[in-house]
Amino acid sequence: MKHVDTLIHGTHVIPVDGRARALNDTAIAVHEGGIVDILPSAAARSQYSFDTSYTYDHHLVIPGLINAHTHAGMSLFRGMASDLPLMEWLNDHIWPAEKKWVNEDFVRHGTRLAIAEMIRGGITCFNDMYFFAEIAAEEVMQSGMRAHLGMILLDFPTAYAKDADEYLDKGLDLYHRHRSSSRVQCMLAPHAPYTVSDGPLKRVAALANEHGLPVHIHRHETENEISMSLEQYRCRPIQRLHELGLVNDRLVAVHMTQLQDDEIELLAGVGASIVHCPQSNLKLASGFCPVQKLLDGQVNVTLGTDSNTSNHDLDLLGEMQTAALLAKGVAGDATALPAHTALQCATINAAKALGIADRTGSLEVGKAADITVIDIEQVGAQPLYDPVGHAVYATQRSQVCDVWVEGQLLLHEGQLQTLDAESILAETRDWNKKISSG
Amino acid sequence: MKHVDTLIHGTHVIPVDGRARALNDTAIAVHEGGIVDILPSAAARSQYSFDTSYTYDHHLVIPGLINAHTHAGMSLFRGMASDLPLMEWLNDHIWPAEKKWVNEDFVRHGTRLAIAEMIRGGITCFNDMYFFAEIAAEEVMQSGMRAHLGMILLDFPTAYAKDADEYLDKGLDLYHRHRSSSRVQCMLAPHAPYTVSDGPLKRVAALANEHGLPVHIHRHETENEISMSLEQYRCRPIQRLHELGLVNDRLVAVHMTQLQDDEIELLAGVGASIVHCPQSNLKLASGFCPVQKLLDGQVNVTLGTDSNTSNHDLDLLGEMQTAALLAKGVAGDATALPAHTALQCATINAAKALGIADRTGSLEVGKAADITVIDIEQVGAQPLYDPVGHAVYATQRSQVCDVWVEGQLLLHEGQLQTLDAESILAETRDWNKKISSG
Repeated sequence: MKHVDTLIHGTHVIPVDGRARALNDTAIAVHEGGIVDILPSAAARSQYSFDTSYTYDHHLVIPGLINAHTHAGMSLFRGMASDLPLMEWLNDHIWPAEKKWVNEDFVRHGTRLAIAEMIRGGITCFNDMYFFAEIAAEEVMQSGMRAHLGMILLDFPTAYAKDADEYLDKGLDLYHRHRSSSRVQCMLAPHAPYTVSDGPLKRVAALANEHGLPVHIHRHETENEISMSLEQYRCRPIQRLHELGLVNDRLVAVHMTQLQDDEIELLAGVGASIVHCPQSNLKLASGFCPVQKLLDGQVNVTLGTDSNTSNHDLDLLGEMQTAALLAKGVAGDATALPAHTALQCATINAAKALGIADRTGSLEVGKAADITVIDIEQVGAQPLYDPVGHAVYATQRSQVCDVWVEGQLLLHEGQLQTLDAESILAETRDWNKKISSG
Repeated sequence: MKHVDTLIHGTHVIPVDGRARALNDTAIAVHEGGIVDILPSAAARSQYSFDTSYTYDHHLVIPGLINAHTHAGMSLFRGMASDLPLMEWLNDHIWPAEKKWVNEDFVRHGTRLAIAEMIRGGITCFNDMYFFAEIAAEEVMQSGMRAHLGMILLDFPTAYAKDADEYLDKGLDLYHRHRSSSRVQCMLAPHAPYTVSDGPLKRVAALANEHGLPVHIHRHETENEISMSLEQYRCRPIQRLHELGLVNDRLVAVHMTQLQDDEIELLAGVGASIVHCPQSNLKLASGFCPVQKLLDGQVNVTLGTDSNTSNHDLDLLGEMQTAALLAKGVAGDATALPAHTALQCATINAAKALGIADRTGSLEVGKAADITVIDIEQVGAQPLYDPVGHAVYATQRSQVCDVWVEGQLLLHEGQLQTLDAESILAETRDWNKKISSG
């Protein structure tokens, strides 16, 4: 008998290992945070001794979900303004609120709330872009979750930094501090082509090359962004960024609702990744990302929730369902973005985009035990004929019962294990009162 | 002190009474199943004595949701086939399965499962179209829920009836049996223009006039339906049905993804209702219903889940969110289908379509106490700035904790009160095994 820390048995295990399949009655052997074996449960019982064992016999077991784009720190503004045109929403609501409230405390409590929400919903890793990322890093470390934190960069001053140099200095400081962490990593995060000018973007390109870092940036979100770029730079944003050396296999481009065929070819050719945020794009009427076209072109497509202000929740299971449904409507083809591909977008594709596919994104031997478990023994989720389709179309985040990151249980039977939900709700109430009356 | 059966106190009560507002610290006085007063909680405490009292102090209190289109009996096929083109899905999966399995038992257990799912998700009334409606009626009566059951009609024979006469005889029998019921009502339900020929449709029009009954029918679901009609009848389906006397204020037309401006004018002019099923339309790539255009044209728009085969769940809260998001994308306008209008579609507009707006669809004195209560004290649903926006964008059906129909609690603290979830799950497991191996 070999000994492992934990044996996890699942009636339906969906490994997302390149084949659209669910394994029946399968065990995942976990030791020192990693997956050391995946085998039939019966065989595992005779081959492995263990410290602890979990049996998920009315569940779907899937890889931990990866939220490839969010602004966690904004969560205290959840639902502050809805049903408004983008510029009115930004100018009259979001930006004034940020100017008034964003500081270290705000980011600490907002990120903590976001992390609690994401773990509760089966997300094991998120790719963040917000101010005071060093505070977010502390919260991520404490939670046990995995995150890539953006070294944010804008042309204009905020409470966080006064100019491009200060943004980048703070970002680089954060990067060097967390270089050896297995869970917290950093990415360059220039906000968008229309908020960062050529000089700082050139520095980003150079730093990305020097340190081998991915670059997380909003891009081609709206038609208006394209028109502004054509007016100011005489080219579309993607062309401009290409000339600045920012279109390559380290690019993580968010939104991409406005795309020409030659741009899809360019993205595919260099091996760039895009983050599709369907609910945010719909809510702000930004346009439709041509997901099936991107997939047909072999572009690496991932999914993001965006923030709690453009989207009311950080629910990647919901986002995956919306993506799978919307892609069919947009393509006019019911076979577009089928369930297993949608699951890939929410897991392994995101791990590839973030450069961590060697350690997470699927349930395979040699990777970390980042695992999400979904309870399907509910009147709204039975019967079950097709586990993969069920995971995408017939589950909601409230059904997520257990979540593992690096072999540590962060959620068990729906209860947060490393965070105190009650105290987070109390902090949130305090902020709610303050912001409402402010 | 006046005496009532029940006082229901809510911190945030959204009456959907024509104004986009939430009432704070408000009481609903319920007596003999009806709402007899709505007033500030403090005033209610001094004016009313009561048998029982409920305080919802971390909740949203909204009118019970009305699912304006479903096929409840199909629920035992949930998720049987996904990611397939419509005709392959119907011909190779759904129709053969129906031919093999549909009988009284199947409809009884499927409808029971659907009712459990719908009550659990805050739905207090549904508009159904399926075979063996008399069995569904028994299940509805037992559950305490409200429903409109379709007197289904097709040209071709099924296990339920051999021809148009038998369908209509069975339907009329059901109608006469439930005429005096406050909760179970009947509607004529010819399946679709392409499955019912002119003769039977003329009888439907005559019966609708004779009995003052609404007519529930699939219509303009896909482009293909329009082409077929143009070929066979030399006109679009809506024109044909108009000539048959079926376009009037009793029309409840489902889907309507293919609409010309003159058709929208026609629908508005006669006061017809349409049922928008956004998730089903996306999943089957049927097309986009022009919701904001319909609203601008003053057409009465309602929402439906469609069945558990084209949509995996009967979740009207989810459908309302999808509708509100999708309408913005389709209109290219972030102000399209704003939150309060979406809530109206899911409540009072549906009550109007079904002809029961005098008794349900909003929280107003004189109506039945059909009430849905949503718990928002959760890390994924805090903070709260705008209760109406929150109800649409930041809630999920798992947060529904209490559901009332005619003053009876059907769900309390997330537990079904009139149905046994365990035995329903056991029945469903048995069917799941049988159908999977059959």
